[in-house]
Order: sequence, then C-alpha cells, then structure tokens
Amino acid sequence: MKPDRVTLVEVGPRDGLQNEAAPVGAAEKIELVRRLQDAGCREIEVTSFVSPKWVPQMADAAQVMAGIERRAGVRYSVLTPNLKGLEAALATRPDEVVVFGAASEAFSRRNINCSIAESLERFAPVVEAAHAAGLKVRGAVSCALGCPYQGEVRPDEVERVVVGMKAIGVDHVGIADTIGVGTPLAAQRALERALKHYPLAEVSGHFHDTYGQALANILACLDLGVHVFDTSIAGLGGCPYAKGATGNVATEDVVYLLHGLGIATGLDLDRLVDAGAYISGVVGRPTASRAARALLARRAAAASS
Amino acid sequence: MKPDRVTLVEVGPRDGLQNEAAPVGAAEKIELVRRLQDAGCREIEVTSFVSPKWVPQMADAAQVMAGIERRAGVRYSVLTPNLKGLEAALATRPDEVVVFGAASEAFSRRNINCSIAESLERFAPVVEAAHAAGLKVRGAVSCALGCPYQGEVRPDEVERVVVGMKAIGVDHVGIADTIGVGTPLAAQRALERALKHYPLAEVSGHFHDTYGQALANILACLDLGVHVFDTSIAGLGGCPYAKGATGNVATEDVVYLLHGLGIATGLDLDRLVDAGAYISGVVGRPTASRAARALLARRAAAASS
Repeated sequence: MKPDRVTLVEVGPRDGLQNEAAPVGAAEKIELVRRLQDAGCREIEVTSFVSPKWVPQMADAAQVMAGIERRAGVRYSVLTPNLKGLEAALATRPDEVVVFGAASEAFSRRNINCSIAESLERFAPVVEAAHAAGLKVRGAVSCALGCPYQGEVRPDEVERVVVGMKAIGVDHVGIADTIGVGTPLAAQRALERALKHYPLAEVSGHFHDTYGQALANILACLDLGVHVFDTSIAGLGGCPYAKGATGNVATEDVVYLLHGLGIATGLDLDRLVDAGAYISGVVGRPTASRAARALLARRAAAASS
Repeated sequence: MKPDRVTLVEVGPRDGLQNEAAPVGAAEKIELVRRLQDAGCREIEVTSFVSPKWVPQMADAAQVMAGIERRAGVRYSVLTPNLKGLEAALATRPDEVVVFGAASEAFSRRNINCSIAESLERFAPVVEAAHAAGLKVRGAVSCALGCPYQGEVRPDEVERVVVGMKAIGVDHVGIADTIGVGTPLAAQRALERALKHYPLAEVSGHFHDTYGQALANILACLDLGVHVFDTSIAGLGGCPYAKGATGNVATEDVVYLLHGLGIATGLDLDRLVDAGAYISGVVGRPTASRAARALLARRAAAASS
C-alpha cells in the first residue's frame, strides 16, 4: 500500500551544490533556499559545517545560515561530520543535523579515513551534543547499494551500520545509493533492513539517477510504505564517481511521479521548475531534470505560439 | 508477479532515427542493425515504408532491408502506414509489419489527417494483405497516456482503439506514451484496457522518458505481467513535441533495470553500450541513456587508472 503523502527533503543547497564544480556565492545559495521555500519545501538541507580545506563550496556555511529567511514550519538541517562542525553549526540554529556514515568499509576508509566502527565512535559525541541542544539527528548511510571501491554492498552491511547508528542514538536513517547503481529489488532489500530497527517515518531513501534507476527505486520503496525521500532541485550534484554522469535524483522528476500517482507532496511543480532554472543558470549547466526540461520546452512553445 | 523474462523490441533504427534531425546513411543504419544483433536483439524495428516527402530519413527503407544481414531467430519489422507502403515492404521480406493509430482524436486528425475510425478503415486492407503474406501485424496505439493537442487521454479512449484494432485483425497492440507524460498508475490503467482484449504476450508498452518516468512505468507494467516493451538504443529519437527534451526510453537503461531485477532479456549490456556509442557518434549527439553514460564513464576511468 503506497502512502498518500510523501515528504521530500530538499538536499540541493548542500549535497547538490557541494558536488558542483562551479563556485556559488552565499547570496545565490540564500536566494535558492528562498525559492525552494516559495515552492513549498518544508525540509531543506542547507549547508555543511566541514573543513573549507576539503569542501571549499561550503566555506560560507555560517553566512548562508545567517542569511536565509526562516519560515515557520520549515526544518533546516546541516551536515556536521564532527564536534567542531557541530559547535559551529549550533551557533547558526539549525533544526536538525546530519551525520554521514558508509555501509562500505572500503568507502569509509577512503572517504573519511577510518573504519565504519571508528566513524560511529566519532559520531556518538556529536549525536549526544546535538540532542543536548534539542536537535534531531539524521544519519546518512552512504554506498548502501554499491561502492565505487569495493563494488557490491550486502544488505547485512547496511543493517550493521543502521544498528550502529541506532546504538548511538541517531533518530532517523537515510539509506543512500551514493553511486546510483541500485535497482528496485536491491533498494527494497536495503530499506527493509533499516525498517527492522526504525519506524516508517524515520527511514528515508536517497537515490541517484546515475544509471537512470532513481524513480523506479522510489516507486519500489513506496510499496514498502516509505514516505520520506531526499531529492535535489534540478538534479544538482552530478556524480563525483563518474564524470559526466547524472547524480542526485531531481526533485522535479520525483514530484511529477508522485503527483501522477495521486500522492501529495505540498510542493508546487511550476515553482520548483523556476527554482531549478534559477540555480542551473547560476552553476552554468542545463538542468538534469527531465520533467523540468519538458516543462520548460512546453512553456517556450506556448510563449512562441 | 513479475515475469522472469522480458522481450525488448528495439525500435532505434526506425522510431528512433526517424525523429533524429541529422540524416543517417543506409550503410550506418545497416551497421547499427548488425551491432544490435551482436548484442542479442531478437526483435528489431528496422525501417518505415512511408512517403519520403514526409519522412526523408526513411527514404532508403528498401536499401536498408536489402542490406541487413538476416540472422536466424531475429524478427525484422517495418512500419507500413498504407497499402502502398505494405506492397513496397513485402518485396523486402519483413517478418512483421506495424500500423500506427492514435488513442487521441485530435492527434489522429493532425498527424494522419483522418479520424481514428477512418484510420482503422485504412488499416484493415493492410492487415488483410499482411496476413495473406504470412506476416504478423503489430498495432501501435500512440498518445495513449496524453496528447500534445487534446491533453488528457482517457483509458476508454485507449480501449476503443484496441477494440478497433482487434476487429480488423491486428495481432499485437503496443500501448504508446508518445509524449512521455504518463506515470505508473496511468500506464497500468491503459495497459489493463488492452489486456481485456489481448493475451499478455500480445500487449506491449512503449514509453518515452520525456518526464523521466519511463522506467517507473515499465516497473509498474511488469507487475501486471507485461513482458514486451519497445526500447530505443541510446534513447535515439528525441521528442518531436518538446524540443530539447528526451524521447524514447533507452534500451540500455531498461536492460540495466531488468537485469537488476533478475529478469532475463538475452541482451548483452556492454555490447548495447557499444552499439549506442556507435550510433550516437553517427548522429552527433551524446547518448540519452543514463546507464550508458555511467558505464562509459566507468570504462574511461578504468582505462586511465
């Protein structure tokens, strides 16, 4: 039985822009958040409190958080990989913080330079401090359906991290197909492992369209009752592991799917297309959203006829 | 219950190339068919016997049919809109012919300049003559999920054409979302109408990726037991109704999905990627297949490391 309402967590400003090569100014990021809010987004991953040495695109995290216009009913989350990041984040009053683990041992070692177990040990005080500050903590389980270094990732590897995250008090787990290799059955199997330990509302899917499978994967997860998904406006983000390939699933494509299924999102597709066109212009590349391309072509045809 | 085997009808050489702006030579079309056969394609829509005045890209239909290397176990189909086209086609020994109707009255009038009922009357002698020559006839029901002129198309409009096609003896119906606006429930509802009148093996889905929904639609149709789908190598075809938008679903993306689901296709994905890269080079545009882009990027990375 599919849900009749789905929440999309808009990750374009953080996960999306972080992987875009073109530097984007704080004013443009703030404007993007404003436009996303105007389109109805109620969960926005705004920025990341990481070392600017590693992620220069997010060096303006505090400035962006200070500049966005806060609206009632909107939850603003930020990525905080460690206590130092959390402390900097807390000063900017986010509603939620995100920690980022991996289901693949090889990815954990290559990406954050420690084992999965060590990464959970590092996150434990972050979760504790976030809770002490009254914030919710989301845990992203990256490479849950495949890893650029080790290849296949088994469902029990996903479950092991989910259990580890639960043990340190993480409130919500997002199962992420970071390299977009997953297909619907694999997606269901991974999410089912998370659902053994977390309630439906606290498990989300994060899919990439690298192999074109993201919407099919979301459709399969809806059949499990999953009703929270990460999406990225205009498909911002590309794929850092396959140059020229598509990355995060585009918010517009997912909204088109969900509305077609009669599932409410609270989002205004036309305004999302506007927001996507805006940020695509800023980063200087065409939108990766197929629905947005089609809708923009339809608008252009209507305007010229 | 999903099928454990799916047949993909490769429509790139006909439906795909017909909508590509760049003229493609007969030798390149013949080479494309050869490469598709090498990749395991067993159903190929090769060309179209239409007036070269309307479709100059298909003026070499007889030359292409004469030039392809016929292989045992492969079915070669051609589009024949009328008796004149059928007569020309018969001389080239196809295994199957395709007639092309519309579920939308507005589309029928604008595209083939007659009502739906008139189009079926015109097809009746084509079907009869094709059967007399021992050929199977497939009927394509275009605009089954939406129309560029009338907008919405209802399932009973689809059923009406399906019934009309059955009445004139069409052996197989393909339900086509010509403009790619459909989503999974709409796709299921349209296919279900066809399944009221044709057995499972004689109903196929033809989806376009204009709004990014094709794979989700195919996934939903698999749940009905449908196991024949049209696909186009490299997503050849674009979308004639929305400039710059994506058209036919890419064979490579569908094969990636199906193999991920454990569904056999008899196709070799790597060789399909090669065939897609070949024809993309010929038409001078990047592949529209996301899976192909990702696999080509992975190959490039492997070659440079």
